[in-house]
Amino acid sequence: MSPRNSAVEARRTRDRIIERSVAVASVEGLEGLTIGRLAADLGMSKSGLLGHFGTKEVLQLASLERASVIFLASVWEPVADARPGLTRLRAVCERWIGYLERERETFPGGCLFTTAVVEFDGRADGPVRDTVERLFRIWRRRLVVDLRLAVRAGELPAGTDPRQIAFELIGLYMGLNHAIQLERDPQAPERTRRALDRLLAV
Amino acid sequence: MSPRNSAVEARRTRDRIIERSVAVASVEGLEGLTIGRLAADLGMSKSGLLGHFGTKEVLQLASLERASVIFLASVWEPVADARPGLTRLRAVCERWIGYLERERETFPGGCLFTTAVVEFDGRADGPVRDTVERLFRIWRRRLVVDLRLAVRAGELPAGTDPRQIAFELIGLYMGLNHAIQLERDPQAPERTRRALDRLLAV
Repeated sequence: MSPRNSAVEARRTRDRIIERSVAVASVEGLEGLTIGRLAADLGMSKSGLLGHFGTKEVLQLASLERASVIFLASVWEPVADARPGLTRLRAVCERWIGYLERERETFPGGCLFTTAVVEFDGRADGPVRDTVERLFRIWRRRLVVDLRLAVRAGELPAGTDPRQIAFELIGLYMGLNHAIQLERDPQAPERTRRALDRLLAV
Repeated sequence: MSPRNSAVEARRTRDRIIERSVAVASVEGLEGLTIGRLAADLGMSKSGLLGHFGTKEVLQLASLERASVIFLASVWEPVADARPGLTRLRAVCERWIGYLERERETFPGGCLFTTAVVEFDGRADGPVRDTVERLFRIWRRRLVVDLRLAVRAGELPAGTDPRQIAFELIGLYMGLNHAIQLERDPQAPERTRRALDRLLAV
């Protein structure tokens, strides 16, 4: 194998490991990841697998980043070019429902973010907790941007506090995720749409 | 020790184990509980500790039941005698905010229920997942009862769907828990009160 091919091969292997790691962590949590289990799943040796990352923590961070890329590719990118403000926000909210409805196709244990938020929120500060918080903050900021534009354009009542609505939106989707995952409630997406209509004053 | 005293002693020990188990599980998750860690924390032998429960699963179930008792003692019991309907619901909602604000005094890792919901929602059916779901359903039913009474008494607009409001309430509190735990957002309780005012049409 030429050096170039072997670099390509190493990247592919790294990708496969991260993909499997995201899937396992969505069920078992990021702390529940074990190098032994991943190596067995992928038919690799433990040291071969760890060689790609160095430590379990680096693999946890790479898995979080990957989950973020998957989330944005499902929820944000297809509607990124919609008209900024209420139009794009409504489109994002609808994609977000679809993402949570179909998340078991993506992550066998449901959204890795929700799992990671709850898994790490009670823990001491550290790189994994910080990354979870940072990725969450970035997402909230995107919601706030469209909410601000919507208020400025008169699409939402004057005096609407964008951060307040973003806070309520995030809770609403945590509830939706919970209702789908734990209760398997088939009405949850429709309930979310009704809540959105009220929240976004449509 | 008389047989009576030793039964009392056994109950006390069992209690201490459950208390410690709830505290550890709130940080590490119910799956993160290890008998070895608990035994070391309590200065017991692993077999001595397991002798009180038989299996780790029985201890997990006992910890969930205990967390439920603590939750109800904080949020429900002090206001159970308030006027049923909107009055009691508002009182419960205010206690619930206080519970989440102070939860680190109760559970070092935050509310064990939220942790357990997310930890087990992606897992296959089993006694722990079933118990999480059952305890959650009981809680939601209490909310729905007061919401129904409030609609019947004209305290909420006619046509209000109690299950819809309960769905939104649960999401709101999951968001509050998240904002307190992960983001340590001091404004989160006030944001929740504002959302409640709108949700309960006050």
